[in-house]
Amino acid sequence: MTKAQAAKTGAGRFFEDFAVGQVLVHATPRTVSHGDVALYSALFGGRFAVQSADTFAHAIGYPRSPVDDLLAFHIVFGKTVADISINAIANLGYAACRFLSPVYPGDTISASSQIIGLKENSNRESGVVYVLSRGRNQHGADIVDYVRWVMVRKRDKDAAAPAPVVPDLVKALPVGSLGDACPILNPARYDFVLAGAPHRWGDYAVGEKIDHVDGMTVEEAEHQIATRLFQNNAKVHFNQFSEGQGRFGRRLVYGGHVISLARALSFNGLANAFHIAAINGGRHVAPLFAGDTVFAWSEIIERAAMLARDDVGALRVRTVATKNRPCADFPLREGEGYHPAVILDLDYWVLAPR
Amino acid sequence: MTKAQAAKTGAGRFFEDFAVGQVLVHATPRTVSHGDVALYSALFGGRFAVQSADTFAHAIGYPRSPVDDLLAFHIVFGKTVADISINAIANLGYAACRFLSPVYPGDTISASSQIIGLKENSNRESGVVYVLSRGRNQHGADIVDYVRWVMVRKRDKDAAAPAPVVPDLVKALPVGSLGDACPILNPARYDFVLAGAPHRWGDYAVGEKIDHVDGMTVEEAEHQIATRLFQNNAKVHFNQFSEGQGRFGRRLVYGGHVISLARALSFNGLANAFHIAAINGGRHVAPLFAGDTVFAWSEIIERAAMLARDDVGALRVRTVATKNRPCADFPLREGEGYHPAVILDLDYWVLAPR
Amino acid sequence: MTKAQAAKTGAGRFFEDFAVGQVLVHATPRTVSHGDVALYSALFGGRFAVQSADTFAHAIGYPRSPVDDLLAFHIVFGKTVADISINAIANLGYAACRFLSPVYPGDTISASSQIIGLKENSNRESGVVYVLSRGRNQHGADIVDYVRWVMVRKRDKDAAAPAPVVPDLVKALPVGSLGDACPILNPARYDFVLAGAPHRWGDYAVGEKIDHVDGMTVEEAEHQIATRLFQNNAKVHFNQFSEGQGRFGRRLVYGGHVISLARALSFNGLANAFHIAAINGGRHVAPLFAGDTVFAWSEIIERAAMLARDDVGALRVRTVATKNRPCADFPLREGEGYHPAVILDLDYWVLAPR
Repeated sequence: MTKAQAAKTGAGRFFEDFAVGQVLVHATPRTVSHGDVALYSALFGGRFAVQSADTFAHAIGYPRSPVDDLLAFHIVFGKTVADISINAIANLGYAACRFLSPVYPGDTISASSQIIGLKENSNRESGVVYVLSRGRNQHGADIVDYVRWVMVRKRDKDAAAPAPVVPDLVKALPVGSLGDACPILNPARYDFVLAGAPHRWGDYAVGEKIDHVDGMTVEEAEHQIATRLFQNNAKVHFNQFSEGQGRFGRRLVYGGHVISLARALSFNGLANAFHIAAINGGRHVAPLFAGDTVFAWSEIIERAAMLARDDVGALRVRTVATKNRPCADFPLREGEGYHPAVILDLDYWVLAPR
Repeated sequence: MTKAQAAKTGAGRFFEDFAVGQVLVHATPRTVSHGDVALYSALFGGRFAVQSADTFAHAIGYPRSPVDDLLAFHIVFGKTVADISINAIANLGYAACRFLSPVYPGDTISASSQIIGLKENSNRESGVVYVLSRGRNQHGADIVDYVRWVMVRKRDKDAAAPAPVVPDLVKALPVGSLGDACPILNPARYDFVLAGAPHRWGDYAVGEKIDHVDGMTVEEAEHQIATRLFQNNAKVHFNQFSEGQGRFGRRLVYGGHVISLARALSFNGLANAFHIAAINGGRHVAPLFAGDTVFAWSEIIERAAMLARDDVGALRVRTVATKNRPCADFPLREGEGYHPAVILDLDYWVLAPR
Repeated sequence: MTKAQAAKTGAGRFFEDFAVGQVLVHATPRTVSHGDVALYSALFGGRFAVQSADTFAHAIGYPRSPVDDLLAFHIVFGKTVADISINAIANLGYAACRFLSPVYPGDTISASSQIIGLKENSNRESGVVYVLSRGRNQHGADIVDYVRWVMVRKRDKDAAAPAPVVPDLVKALPVGSLGDACPILNPARYDFVLAGAPHRWGDYAVGEKIDHVDGMTVEEAEHQIATRLFQNNAKVHFNQFSEGQGRFGRRLVYGGHVISLARALSFNGLANAFHIAAINGGRHVAPLFAGDTVFAWSEIIERAAMLARDDVGALRVRTVATKNRPCADFPLREGEGYHPAVILDLDYWVLAPR
């Protein structure tokens, strides 16, 4: 490839292309529509009433149904891929994801990321990049932000290492930071029959485990359609020709697809946990491939009243997803590590009516 | 599973949990959008002009394109699954399905069911539950209602049997009960060229058989996306892990998927039968699986003028769908039973311009 | 099949059913919605900012995001199939495709075709039909027109041959005929960061080749969903039962699917070529099947200033798509013919900001 040609097709950033403090404005803002909502619903099968029916949402205090929290997250995440992780060796983690404003069909989402940490690996061939990514709507209001860290290749092994900066990350967001994306609701107008279960915030106990029972098999067409819907262009999800020659011999399902499936499955047991207020962190313990069936279970880690509002309360939930393994016995650990069927270990805050 | 945990994840109702007269309000109302319409169209390939073009619908007297009748039906049906048939051994039949109001994008559909019959099976391990299900829009108007009967497991074989009640079901809805979901139209403004065929109601003869010619192969991703779009959470459609160990070794395609495919195929021959006014009954003769190709043919059973309107007339149609078997010779019976290729035998009323 | 039955299911036109000058108005107008846009985006993964974000489009002078040019093309093309090519042996080519008005969600597209040429083949069993097809919106404005020629079977070998008429087709549309579907823009408000690349019209050089790098694997469900979305009912795309016994043993992916994939891949290198103004011609060199991975590269053939406007300039681009073969070395010819991996050779005009 000549230089002029290379100039037109970006090879993406390598480790030495990042600097702490740098802000990257990501390409392709996206107007979210009812079409996106319908597709998201058809791909994951969510049945939470707030996101499904304008009438239900309006009755309790939303102007109309907000878009699923994870749809907004995936759209923001998708925009960051070309600038942050196209040369990533691994997505190492994410933390401190806050949902800050509701998103409605018609809103336009754009995204930017600030580099908040860099640490070269000892082999000098790669390094860890920490970014604070942020999605905004057309009014400039933040809708979601989160920290992510990825291991990125160096273009040139001999490039000078930056001074290491590793941000201090909270293990869990404090309850006081939750709820900005949820208007003050009228719980008296929350119809528990239409919502599908009678359980309020106060009906959940710390330590309680919930098997979400159902399993959902993933097809190649499904995860490809979803990941393109999010305009996430990470190569590993779409290119069987190259992945067929790679480590797994096949396309890898986007980790966010597993989160969305687990969230949809969690309706059976957490039907009134209608809003994800924050994601404290998550580990994609093992890869998921088309043909696998995803199951999930959850544990209530913490139950917290909100600051200055008593319409809803917060539940800190750990949701564990498995592949090809029902969760009636809540599989998690085996020996030193995870149970071999576990693919996701997610720690997040949801809101439920009191 | 401990009791507290079981309390959060519903196991669904068993035969002894139903009582005649009981009304169940189903979860998750759903606002139908242009996104649902686009997906429905892309999944089944309908080409009926009334449902495809606002201009066409408006010209003849609709305010704009109504949603496909079967999309409305599937959404209502989907809501009933968790409460009625999650522990069903078999969906035995449905009858007396009337379409009562048109549905437009923006409308919110909710559903309820009344138990109208119960009959324990002689083996005392299961029984038949008859329900009258009803979908309503946000104004409280009925949009569709129908009777369904399913065989449901008993939780406890020794539970007392209820007094048997078997509702009296009409074999076919009378023509006088049809047409509420179709506004009075101006047939002079119905453009038969844009609609795709010249045939009016009067051009069809009782006994006439129509081969719909085309075949449509079903993929796993397609029926899963469709069935989740309808928020139908019946396990057999989605979980290859458990179904792989079951009777068929694979996921079962939702019976409504077959109906929608047959309806879309029927455009070739019934292009002006733009509205399903009622479904008299249907038999899902054999299961459909991904990879199979669906064909269909129809017979005109009855031709009836409408009461107090002469814009449209009613045709009672029997549509038979097969798998992996073209229908040029109208396969139906073989020996004592159905031809082995037949998967659906549907009896319904359509309206066509006079 | 009896005659009455055959009368209801159209067998489609054969070669002798066409006459030069004849105008065919095609069935099933279609109101384009945000749902179609979302599905199109999720099926092909486009990331062009103009079509993705209302805010971006509005800033530069569109009222809001127009629908992807190729979505409009495919919808028009789909309508012509039942009348023109349902009995085609081969789609031989298309030319002189002009995009004449932008399409927005809510617009209703209808289509018609005029027969502009006929030439019987020497074997007298088939002939070539040339049509000028045209899509219009609900206001009667032309949105796209193009010439297509297909080889169509004769019903009766002995039918008289029409006088041969072969239209004179331009190899490339003149630049003066371009741009009607693009309003006068304000390039100062075109945000190259949000658009994903800094390259303006003037940054491209004639002869420059661009490898679009990424590959996209196609699934059966994806191309079927797309082709039904376009209401294209060509049998070869949907019917595994019959295609399994045919020439390839499998369903053929709609050629337009390849064009849309190549266009979406071309974002990496042509991010600011936001509008397809015309398609000069295209050859579908080899068929694509599900499971294949599509790659693409482009060459700039011509760079032309527009007449009477200096907001945008035109680039004539040749985009070549391959299957299962990356394009870093720009595969095109091998020996006398095409490189065996090439599936599409497309010649078209795009507009980019100056």
